[in-house]
Amino acid sequence: MTEKELLELKPDKPNYKMFDAMISRFDSVCKPIDGLGDLERVIASIGAAKREEMPNLKKKALVIMCADNGVVEEGVSQTDESVTSKVAYLMGQKRSVVGVMLDDYDADTFVYDIGMKSDETFDGVINKKVANGTKNMVKEAAMSTDECLRAIEAGIDIVKGLADKYSILATGEMGIGNTTTSTALICALLNERSDRIVGKGAGLTKERLDKKVEVINRSIARAIAETGDVSDERKRALEMLHQLGGFDIAAMAGVFIGGAICHVPIVIDGLISVAAALAASMIVPGCEEYMLASHTGKERGTALALQALDLKAVINADLALGEGTGAVMLFPLIDMAYSVYEKGPFFTDAGMDAYERNPDDND
Amino acid sequence: MTEKELLELKPDKPNYKMFDAMISRFDSVCKPIDGLGDLERVIASIGAAKREEMPNLKKKALVIMCADNGVVEEGVSQTDESVTSKVAYLMGQKRSVVGVMLDDYDADTFVYDIGMKSDETFDGVINKKVANGTKNMVKEAAMSTDECLRAIEAGIDIVKGLADKYSILATGEMGIGNTTTSTALICALLNERSDRIVGKGAGLTKERLDKKVEVINRSIARAIAETGDVSDERKRALEMLHQLGGFDIAAMAGVFIGGAICHVPIVIDGLISVAAALAASMIVPGCEEYMLASHTGKERGTALALQALDLKAVINADLALGEGTGAVMLFPLIDMAYSVYEKGPFFTDAGMDAYERNPDDND
Repeated sequence: MTEKELLELKPDKPNYKMFDAMISRFDSVCKPIDGLGDLERVIASIGAAKREEMPNLKKKALVIMCADNGVVEEGVSQTDESVTSKVAYLMGQKRSVVGVMLDDYDADTFVYDIGMKSDETFDGVINKKVANGTKNMVKEAAMSTDECLRAIEAGIDIVKGLADKYSILATGEMGIGNTTTSTALICALLNERSDRIVGKGAGLTKERLDKKVEVINRSIARAIAETGDVSDERKRALEMLHQLGGFDIAAMAGVFIGGAICHVPIVIDGLISVAAALAASMIVPGCEEYMLASHTGKERGTALALQALDLKAVINADLALGEGTGAVMLFPLIDMAYSVYEKGPFFTDAGMDAYERNPDDND
Repeated sequence: MTEKELLELKPDKPNYKMFDAMISRFDSVCKPIDGLGDLERVIASIGAAKREEMPNLKKKALVIMCADNGVVEEGVSQTDESVTSKVAYLMGQKRSVVGVMLDDYDADTFVYDIGMKSDETFDGVINKKVANGTKNMVKEAAMSTDECLRAIEAGIDIVKGLADKYSILATGEMGIGNTTTSTALICALLNERSDRIVGKGAGLTKERLDKKVEVINRSIARAIAETGDVSDERKRALEMLHQLGGFDIAAMAGVFIGGAICHVPIVIDGLISVAAALAASMIVPGCEEYMLASHTGKERGTALALQALDLKAVINADLALGEGTGAVMLFPLIDMAYSVYEKGPFFTDAGMDAYERNPDDND
C-alpha cells in the first residue's frame, strides 16, 4: 500500500439506522429505558458496524502485536528487550497474563512478531516482522515511512484474514518502552504537553520518570523539526506515527483501519492501543466509528486520547498491563448485554406496558 | 434480633496481612506492578474477608429482594406495584433481565418476596414477606422498627444459610418506587440535599422529577421531626432506615451485615443496593470492609454513597437497571483476575527478574 493509497482511504459509515433500531429493541425489554447504559450503545454500535441487527457475537479474537523500541537504550524502562521476547514466548503458549485470563473464556488469540529485536522464533507467534526493532526516536525517526506503511498494511491484512471468522477483535501488545512511544505520539498528535500525561509505565522511580519526560520532549521536538510544516492533517499524523511510533502501534493502527474497511468492530485496550487508535482515526478519518473503548486505564494519556476520539470506556479499574487484558474484559460484559438484547424479556411477552422514552430526555 | 443486639454487633476485621500477602503474590506475576489495578485489590479483599489465601471462587450467587413501597401512591414512578409482581414472576423463572444475563454464566440466583404488596406466590420466589409493602413515607414511617429489624434479620439469616456453599454473594432488588426511597435514605444518612442527587429512576419527565424531589424532601423532614435528636449515630441510622427505607433496602442491609458476620464478601449493585450498604455500615460499623463495589451507576446518589463508604467501583457504564445486573457484571472480571492470581505466569517460572515496587510509590 502506498502512502497515497492509505491517505485516500475513506471508510463506509456504519449503519446508524440499524443502531437506532437496535436501541428500540432494547427499549422493548422489561427494564428502565437505557437501563444497561453504555452497554446498550456498545451492542448497537457493533450491529451498526456489521450491518446486522442480530449479529452472531460468539466468535471473538484478540490480536497481539509484539515489537521492540530503540528508545529503550535511553533508560526509560525498568527492564530491556529480553522481556519482550520472554513474554512473547509465553503468549505463544497462551501462558502470558492475557492467555491465563482467557483460560476459561472462549476467545482465540493471535500473536504477531511485528518487529521484535530478537530473531528467535516461538511456537504460536506468527512472523510478520518489519524490522528488528525501531530506531531510537530521540536521535532519528523510529521507522522509515516505508516501514511504517508495511506495519500498517500488515495490520489491515490481519483483519482481512480474520473478518470472516470473528465478529469482534480486541487489540493487545507487548513491547518494552511502548508507554514512552505511545505517550510521545499522543502528545504530538494532540499538541499536548508530555509532563501533563506521562505515566510510570511498568513502574518507574521519580528520577526515571523525569528522564522519560525529557526523552519524550526531545523526541517530539526532533520529530517536529524534521517533519516541518505539514498542512495536510492526515499526512501529518502519518509522519508523527513513523517518527515516534513503534511497529506495534503502527500495526495496531492498521488493525483499526482494517476494522473500518471490513466492518469489524475493534476493541481498544489501554495506552498503546489507544495511541494507535488515535493515529488511525487521524490518518483514515471515520475509522473511529468502528472502535469500542474498553477501559480508561491508569496512564492519563488513555483518557485524553479516548476523549479526542469521542469514545467512553465501560471499565474504570486503573488497569496498566497491556497485552489486551483490559480489552478482553469487555467481552463477557458484551455477552451479558447481548443475551438481554437477543432474548429479552420483552414487555409484550410479560403483559406489561413499556416505559416511555421522554421527548425531553437528553441523556 | 432486638435493636440492642443489632446495635451491639461488632464484626471481625478482615485479615489484612492476608490482603498484603495476596498483593505480593500479584507482584510476583509477570506484569507491571499493580497492572490489574483495582481488580488486584478486589481479589485481595475477597481473600482477606474469607481468611483464605487461595479462596475457591467458583460458586457465586445473586440474592434478590423484592418489595413494594407505599410512597408509589404519590406518583413518583412511571408505573405501579403490578410491575414489581410481574418482574418477580419473571425472576423466579430466571427470565427477568438479570436471569437472561446469567444464561451462560455459572451463578445461582435466589429471589425473595421480602414485602411485595401482592399476596400472589410464584415458583422460584421464596417467601420472606414482612408485610404487604411499606407505608407511604411522606405521611408516616415506612415501616415500624420491629418490621425493619425483621427484614434486616431475614437478610442476615439468608447469608448464614448460603455462606457454606457460596464464596461471594451479589445483591439485587426489584421494587417500583425504590429509587425514591433509596435517595431519601442516602440524603438523610449523609445530610445531603435531595435536589443535588435525585435521578430519573426508570424514566421520569421534568414534572414528575420535581414531584419526586418534593416527596423526598417532605419525607425526610417528617422523618427527622418524628425521630427527634438521636445522638447515637448507629441508632440514628436505624431510625432513618425504618422511616425512609423499604423492605428490600432493610433486607439488603441485613445481607451486608450478614456478610461481615459470616466472612462472605458481598457485591454492591446500584443505587438501592448502595443505600442499603450505607445504612448497614452506619448501623454496624465495620461491615463495609466486607463489601465490593461493582459499578458507579447513572443515579448520582450511587457515586456519593460509594464515596462515603470509601469504595471504588470497577465498572462505569451508566447502568440504571437494578436486579443486581451491575453486581453480576463484576463476576466474570473477578474470574479473569483470579485466574491470573492463581496460575500466573510468575517471574520465577519465566526466568525473569520481577519489577520492583517503588518505595516512593503512593498510587
